[in-house]
Amino acid sequence: MKKKETQIDNIEENDGNCNTNLAITKCTGETQANLASLITQYVETLNQCSFRHLGYPTNQDLNYDVLLPLLNFHLNNAGDPFLGSSFSLNSTAFEVCVLDWFANLWEIEKNEYWGYVTTGGTEGNLHGILVGREQLPDGILYTSQDSHYSIFKIARMYRMQCVKVRTLVSGEIDCVDLKALLVAHKDKPAIINLNIGTTMKGAVDDVELVIQTLEGCGFTRDRFYVHCDAALFGMMLPFLKGASRISFKKAIGSVTISGHKFLGCPIPCGVLITRLEYINALSRDIEIIGSRDATITGSRCGHAPIFLWYALKRRGLIGLQNEVQNCIMNAVYLQNRLRDAGIGAMLNEFSNIVIFERPLDDEFSRRWSLACNGNIAHVVVMQHVTIQMLDSFVSEFLQKRSIWFKDRRFQPLCIANDIGSRNCACSMHNSIS
Amino acid sequence: MKKKETQIDNIEENDGNCNTNLAITKCTGETQANLASLITQYVETLNQCSFRHLGYPTNQDLNYDVLLPLLNFHLNNAGDPFLGSSFSLNSTAFEVCVLDWFANLWEIEKNEYWGYVTTGGTEGNLHGILVGREQLPDGILYTSQDSHYSIFKIARMYRMQCVKVRTLVSGEIDCVDLKALLVAHKDKPAIINLNIGTTMKGAVDDVELVIQTLEGCGFTRDRFYVHCDAALFGMMLPFLKGASRISFKKAIGSVTISGHKFLGCPIPCGVLITRLEYINALSRDIEIIGSRDATITGSRCGHAPIFLWYALKRRGLIGLQNEVQNCIMNAVYLQNRLRDAGIGAMLNEFSNIVIFERPLDDEFSRRWSLACNGNIAHVVVMQHVTIQMLDSFVSEFLQKRSIWFKDRRFQPLCIANDIGSRNCACSMHNSIS
Repeated sequence: MKKKETQIDNIEENDGNCNTNLAITKCTGETQANLASLITQYVETLNQCSFRHLGYPTNQDLNYDVLLPLLNFHLNNAGDPFLGSSFSLNSTAFEVCVLDWFANLWEIEKNEYWGYVTTGGTEGNLHGILVGREQLPDGILYTSQDSHYSIFKIARMYRMQCVKVRTLVSGEIDCVDLKALLVAHKDKPAIINLNIGTTMKGAVDDVELVIQTLEGCGFTRDRFYVHCDAALFGMMLPFLKGASRISFKKAIGSVTISGHKFLGCPIPCGVLITRLEYINALSRDIEIIGSRDATITGSRCGHAPIFLWYALKRRGLIGLQNEVQNCIMNAVYLQNRLRDAGIGAMLNEFSNIVIFERPLDDEFSRRWSLACNGNIAHVVVMQHVTIQMLDSFVSEFLQKRSIWFKDRRFQPLCIANDIGSRNCACSMHNSIS
Repeated sequence: MKKKETQIDNIEENDGNCNTNLAITKCTGETQANLASLITQYVETLNQCSFRHLGYPTNQDLNYDVLLPLLNFHLNNAGDPFLGSSFSLNSTAFEVCVLDWFANLWEIEKNEYWGYVTTGGTEGNLHGILVGREQLPDGILYTSQDSHYSIFKIARMYRMQCVKVRTLVSGEIDCVDLKALLVAHKDKPAIINLNIGTTMKGAVDDVELVIQTLEGCGFTRDRFYVHCDAALFGMMLPFLKGASRISFKKAIGSVTISGHKFLGCPIPCGVLITRLEYINALSRDIEIIGSRDATITGSRCGHAPIFLWYALKRRGLIGLQNEVQNCIMNAVYLQNRLRDAGIGAMLNEFSNIVIFERPLDDEFSRRWSLACNGNIAHVVVMQHVTIQMLDSFVSEFLQKRSIWFKDRRFQPLCIANDIGSRNCACSMHNSIS
């Protein structure tokens, strides 16, 4: 190449912030063999990590070999999945089947719902809360203090007033506090984000109690909107005896789940289902938006709906139910193992998230990919988490603890505020050991 | 399963809106063999479509076989790529290399930039415009009428006043109109979205002229923010002799490109680069957001950065330059073929998008995946578009035209308003044939 002819002729080789092996600095292309060898090394690291991946609600028990030929196509479900696309390489046929399945699961008629496959939980929340805001433009957003941080970020993006509601020890929204807050802001409509499974404690907000509270405070159906963030538990509760239903027969406006959590998609994705009437209202100002596209991202992944379709169709309802029950059983096992060892632990009903004292050593938490918050840590017992993994984890934790607490200068912290005094195993609440 | 025990026991088999073959209705799981056969059929359809995929700016010349083993992991680069993640199965090492490469390309020092791999152009625009709004909370958003519809959608989401600016025939923003609008709204800061390649005509807004216009109207650097939507052309202009530079040495705030367009990633993705100082400002209210995560989507795809990394590293600068030049050359070929056949056509400088009369028959447009708007259609000459494909397209178009225009009741429409009178081949402007 001659000098100064194009912008790239001025490019200097630059390592920047990145890993030297991976740096993209050469002018000529790298051989496929060299790249394959870097990828092989990376896959080995990933395999090592998978064995100790305990703290995040992602299913790592994946087998998508059947779908590999699709990776050599760019698939794009741009815009509304129900309108068809002039982009011919799309997978909307798969997407609509997935949406139908969820509509059926959450009890809404096929001619009354609208939805799409999102890029993950945050996009689902972005959409649900936007629909709520467009229905009730001066509505206040209420959400519990245990909500995912994306909710507060979204309130800021959307320039909405956001009111944080207290939670019970379980992590569930405190309807007494909600009531007081609703009464204090009675003049404005309410847009409520509910957690069907909080991130940290796996607590399920009581949809019916929240709706009763709204109505009790004089909010009629046209003055509130309920969005359900059901990222992980939306796929689990329907399979558990006695669990409350996620259902559009209740006065809710939208539900979203994540596809990479329980269902185990390799890429982050999710499903959003809402009522068609809201989308029709949203599309009123078609000339302003210049499109009938009511999605957030527009150009949308065509592979994600196929991963979801495959995950659902391969398992069937029975397969899914078995997986849910197995996760819950293993979570109970972990809670028992911790308690038996004198470690305070909490496990909410219908949850696979076990909460316990935060390990003193962050290195240990990183090694097991634990998610920590304040004084507590948690393990999310997903499909890839075996009894053997849990046993290794507990025994390593006990061994480390015996070192941390050896000279009695350090003692297990009291975490009664986080998990309740009856679950705490500190010297004061030492009730379970 | 016993009746009424769990929510799923009530589920009825329901075909819903979806394709019967693909419907997910059975309680038991489907065999891998049956699913594989459905996927094989689908891949055949995709292969057929690829041969006539002319209207969209996605490169369909993909070979990611080396990366297939990664599809059996869920990878997640949750949050800020530079902060590291406690989610151990991440690819931030690859992501930072990709970001460094773009920072270098767009001339910003490694300690002065921030960025991340997005889910596509829309997320890049969502981010850039949000950063602009947070810098200038009462700023007005200016964007040309030829902008992607996502810009208008974003203005509504963010509750920003949006002013639409006229364009020249080329599709480029009209700085005379911009000036008049800026003067009329002088009291408020300006947030400008620029198109580095408009969707329909591939016109490049003149960044330097826009900045001169802003300064000429009395807008000092602290009262404007420029976001560049460089979805497709951001990867092409740097490789073209005489093209204007995308550079942070100019007074711009952010640039975004799409990864599935020129670079050919199988899933929609993109790159957003902005100035680190803005992100530090955004993170001021950490307690409110509850996180240092300045991304839009939070849970982010770990595969996309590896696809981008592979695409860049495999080609090198020289490989990329060859591909850019080849696309431009083939676009010129198509324009010439159309003109030689008496069909008016326009091709902007440094562009691979050929604009011409909209085919009378929508079926023909669908068959070739043409993107149409009003009286015009376009072909985007990407890497998978060969001379053979273009020849087939032109000869089929001519054949169809001879049928549509046979009885002289229908005549080619005048599209001088869209592509300029010197490019138009209607009976009045018939200058080129």
